[in-house]
Amino acid sequence: MILYDYFRSSAAYRVRIALQMKGIVVEHRQVHLQRGEQSRPSYLATNPQALVPTLELDDGTVLTQSLAIIEYLEALRPEPRLIPVDPVLAARVRAVALAIACDIHPLNNPRVVKYLETELNAPETGVDAWRRHWLLNGLEAVERLIAPMGSPAGPFCFGAAVTLADVCLIPQLYSARRFETPLDHLPRILAVEAACADLPAFRAAHPSRQADAQ
Amino acid sequence: MILYDYFRSSAAYRVRIALQMKGIVVEHRQVHLQRGEQSRPSYLATNPQALVPTLELDDGTVLTQSLAIIEYLEALRPEPRLIPVDPVLAARVRAVALAIACDIHPLNNPRVVKYLETELNAPETGVDAWRRHWLLNGLEAVERLIAPMGSPAGPFCFGAAVTLADVCLIPQLYSARRFETPLDHLPRILAVEAACADLPAFRAAHPSRQADAQ
Repeated sequence: MILYDYFRSSAAYRVRIALQMKGIVVEHRQVHLQRGEQSRPSYLATNPQALVPTLELDDGTVLTQSLAIIEYLEALRPEPRLIPVDPVLAARVRAVALAIACDIHPLNNPRVVKYLETELNAPETGVDAWRRHWLLNGLEAVERLIAPMGSPAGPFCFGAAVTLADVCLIPQLYSARRFETPLDHLPRILAVEAACADLPAFRAAHPSRQADAQ
Repeated sequence: MILYDYFRSSAAYRVRIALQMKGIVVEHRQVHLQRGEQSRPSYLATNPQALVPTLELDDGTVLTQSLAIIEYLEALRPEPRLIPVDPVLAARVRAVALAIACDIHPLNNPRVVKYLETELNAPETGVDAWRRHWLLNGLEAVERLIAPMGSPAGPFCFGAAVTLADVCLIPQLYSARRFETPLDHLPRILAVEAACADLPAFRAAHPSRQADAQ
């Protein structure tokens, strides 16, 4: 399989963690977003959204959207499970993943920030405030979603095992730290971050460890 | 079960369609987004993101995020299936759902539009252009994602049966028409829209048929 990847993309980073967790080895092909490689006709034929990641299967089938790719990997190699079997717990795990993937990440995607700058003439301070606003708004909600009454204790978002919620949270925290977002008031999230930092799968998937890291 | 709902929310509309498809009857409680009811402390205790929909189960368990709720309903009542059993087809269906739920809908959410107006001082024409830009950008990609080489023929996004892709597409088209987005160049999407318009589940879930429609 081939993963079309970019070291700093938090969506691609999620898929890298899932692949590492499941021990699936893929070929990585870098699509340099800052150089606009995602808009080349050859890549658009693969991914009409001009986004990373894309996973190309051995028969040439192309899968897009990080969460759809991770659900596919879960079906392909169920262990270790990233989505719990219990439907209610699965829904809570997916809700955290989606609170990040829908309500934080897309608002701060480079294409959106570029639109703010070029089409709405937003000043640099306005763009910085926008980024931090959606990061904080979303992460403060996640802090409450991962620690509801009666949920299991940590160290991860939903207990003793890594789930899709952790797989989405850690890349979003990498982005939050890049943009100097204050996180000290989010103790559950910081505990999850510390627990994941020790895991080989998360270390291997980190942006700084990728071939295109600069 | 109780669905916290708002007639015009396209995320709530997705869940209404899924409930109708599966024949699950729930109590609807309206959360009036224009009047700010989503920010009341009682609702925030239920949904810390201050978003609709929320599904409250009979034992008081609260589920958030429309796609997580629909995956739960799929586990609770598998027939008719909205997510195909085949993992590759399931990934394609989920990718279309996520292309809408992550990359179109959140950018045009009322809270985001309000931020553009009040914090970035975007003029009305700029906000209208923003809305249509992300709607068109996303729907043009969806047009290509639902008709890849070798995929089954319609009338729905992925063949002869309704899937999660249709459940997400129809509410987004309702929003696109509200904001007068040109769609004539998207023939596959228009064919799906026409096919779904005839189905009782989609008709019953339409915003105009809800108790809070004005």
